[in-house]
Amino acid sequence: MQLSTIYAPIQEDLVKVENELEAVSKVDFSWLAELLNYSLSSGGKGIRPALTLLSGKFYRYNLTTLLPIATAVEVLHIATLIHDDAIDKSSARRGKPTLYKVWGEEKAVLLGDYLFAKAGELTATTKNLRVIKLFAQTLKTISTGELAQTFSAFSLEQTYEQYVQRISYKTAALFILATESGGALSMAPETSIQILNEYGYNLGIAFQIVDDILDFVGTEEELGKPTGSDLAQGTLTLPAMLLLKRYPEDNPVKRLFHNGDKEKDIKLAIELVRNSSIIEECYRIASDYCAKACRNLNLLPDNASRQALIELANYVVNRKK
Amino acid sequence: MQLSTIYAPIQEDLVKVENELEAVSKVDFSWLAELLNYSLSSGGKGIRPALTLLSGKFYRYNLTTLLPIATAVEVLHIATLIHDDAIDKSSARRGKPTLYKVWGEEKAVLLGDYLFAKAGELTATTKNLRVIKLFAQTLKTISTGELAQTFSAFSLEQTYEQYVQRISYKTAALFILATESGGALSMAPETSIQILNEYGYNLGIAFQIVDDILDFVGTEEELGKPTGSDLAQGTLTLPAMLLLKRYPEDNPVKRLFHNGDKEKDIKLAIELVRNSSIIEECYRIASDYCAKACRNLNLLPDNASRQALIELANYVVNRKK
Repeated sequence: MQLSTIYAPIQEDLVKVENELEAVSKVDFSWLAELLNYSLSSGGKGIRPALTLLSGKFYRYNLTTLLPIATAVEVLHIATLIHDDAIDKSSARRGKPTLYKVWGEEKAVLLGDYLFAKAGELTATTKNLRVIKLFAQTLKTISTGELAQTFSAFSLEQTYEQYVQRISYKTAALFILATESGGALSMAPETSIQILNEYGYNLGIAFQIVDDILDFVGTEEELGKPTGSDLAQGTLTLPAMLLLKRYPEDNPVKRLFHNGDKEKDIKLAIELVRNSSIIEECYRIASDYCAKACRNLNLLPDNASRQALIELANYVVNRKK
Repeated sequence: MQLSTIYAPIQEDLVKVENELEAVSKVDFSWLAELLNYSLSSGGKGIRPALTLLSGKFYRYNLTTLLPIATAVEVLHIATLIHDDAIDKSSARRGKPTLYKVWGEEKAVLLGDYLFAKAGELTATTKNLRVIKLFAQTLKTISTGELAQTFSAFSLEQTYEQYVQRISYKTAALFILATESGGALSMAPETSIQILNEYGYNLGIAFQIVDDILDFVGTEEELGKPTGSDLAQGTLTLPAMLLLKRYPEDNPVKRLFHNGDKEKDIKLAIELVRNSSIIEECYRIASDYCAKACRNLNLLPDNASRQALIELANYVVNRKK
C-alpha cells in the first residue's frame, strides 16, 4: 500500500505540516534561510508527523496543538540527522548531498542546534507541560543512544538486548514522542496514551530493524546513500550480529572491525548476509515488533486512523527505502 | 571585589546549584557519567546562575523554580562551549583539555546535544511557559549568533553595529535568559522584568567585549587557552576592528585574514593593539554598557541583591579572566 493512501485520514493536515516546515525557513538572515530551506525540504516520508496526527484522531482532535508538535517532531528528526551526518562525515542522504558535505561541519553542528531549539519552541506553543517535558527527555534519550553507538563502534561485544536498547533510544524514542504527544494533546485517557506509546515503541524498533536490513539489501539508489554504511561506521546491527553468530570463526565483520580490508570485507559481509536466511530472520523479528505494536490498537476507538496505524505498521516492514 | 563577596546574598543557594550540576552526572551508564562529570566540573565563574538567583531576589524568591532554571542556564552555557570547542577544534579551555580534545568530535557534538536536552528538561520543571519559551528562543538566538560568526569568518567587512548584534546573539541572549527568568519566576512586575532584561543585555555585551579584549591582553595562563584565539579563528572582534580602522593600509589583521603568516601576524596584531590606546577605548565602550546595564536598577527594590548586581557589573569590566 502506498503511503499516500495510508495517510488519507490526515492528508490535508499533513500538507499543513509541510507548510509549517516551510515557514521555519522564513527568517531574517538570508544565509540562515538558505541552510534551513536546504535541510527542511529534504523530502522525508513524513512518518513521524503522520503518527502524531493519526494518534490525535481518537479523541478530541485539536489541530492548534497537534500541528506544532507534529512539525516539532519532524524538525527534531531532521536536526538529529544533520548531526549524525556531521559526525559520521556522510556525503549523501536521501540521494542528495548532506548539509555537512555542502557547508561543512561547523555549520552542520550549529544548524542542528538551531533546529533543536526551533523544535523546542514549537513544542512550547502547545502549552502542554507533559508534552514539553517528553520532548526534552526524548532528545536526551536520542543523544544517549547515539553516544552509546559511538562508544560501541567497532566492538563485537553486543547482546541482542543491548542492540534493542540502543535502537529504542536512538529511534523508537522519537516514535513514542510522536504517538504519545498525539494522544496527550487530544485528551486521550491514560490507558489509550499508553497503547499509543506501546505502538510507537514497537513500531520504532521494527522501523530501525528494517533500516538495518536495508543497509544490507538495498541498492545505493534506493537508500540514497552507499550500501553497507553501518558496517563502514563500525555499527553492529542485527543482520551483522546474526552473521557473526552463524560464522563465529572466519567472518568478514570480525576482520573488518579489527582493521581488515574495509571495502572487501564489507562487500563480503553483504554478500554472505544476502545469500543466507538472515534477512528473513531479521524480517521475522521486525514483523513480530509490528504485531506487538498493533496488538492493543483494538482497544482504541474504531476509526479510519486506527486502520491507518495498522497499515503503517505493515508499510514499515515492507518498505524498500 | 572578589566574586565570592559579590555573591554573598545568594552564596548558600549557589552551592545548591553546584549540587544540582553534580546531580546531572548521576546517570545509569558509566561512560555517560564520565563525560558529564568531566564537562560539568569545569570550574566556571558561575556568573549566569548567580544572575538568575540575584534577579529572583526582588519579589517572591522561590527556590523551587529558581534552582532548576539557574542550573539550566549553566548547563546550556556549558553545552554551547562544548560545541564551540568541537567546531573550533580547541584544545584547551579554562586551563584544561576540552572534551573535544580528550574524547573527540563525535562525543563532543552528542554530549552537547544531551546537555541541551537536559537544560530543557530542567527548564520544564519550572512549569512556567514564558520561561520555557524564552529558553528555546535563547538557544535559537545563540546558534544564530554562532552561525553568523562562521559565515563572517576571515571577512574584514563588519560594522560596529553588526559586531554588537553578533555578540548580543552569541553572549547577551544567555545573560537575558538568566536575568529575565529570575524576574519572571519571582513574580516580578513586567516593568521590573524589563529592567532585569535590559541589565542582562547590556552586561552580556560588556562581558563579551571584555572577553574580546582579554584575548589580546591576557596571558595564556590567565585565559586557560592561547592568546589570540579569536584572530586564529578568523573572528573579527572589537580590538581588531579598531586596529583595522587605525591602520587601514598595512595591517597584520588584513594580511592574516588573507592568508598571511598566521603566527607572525597574530603576534604583531596583539603587539600593536597592546601598544596603542585601543584597549583603553574598548574598555571605555564596555564600561558604557555596564553603566547602561545599571542605569535603571534603582527602580528595583533596594536590597543586597541590587547592590550585588551593580558590583557584578563592575567586576565584569575589571576581571582578568
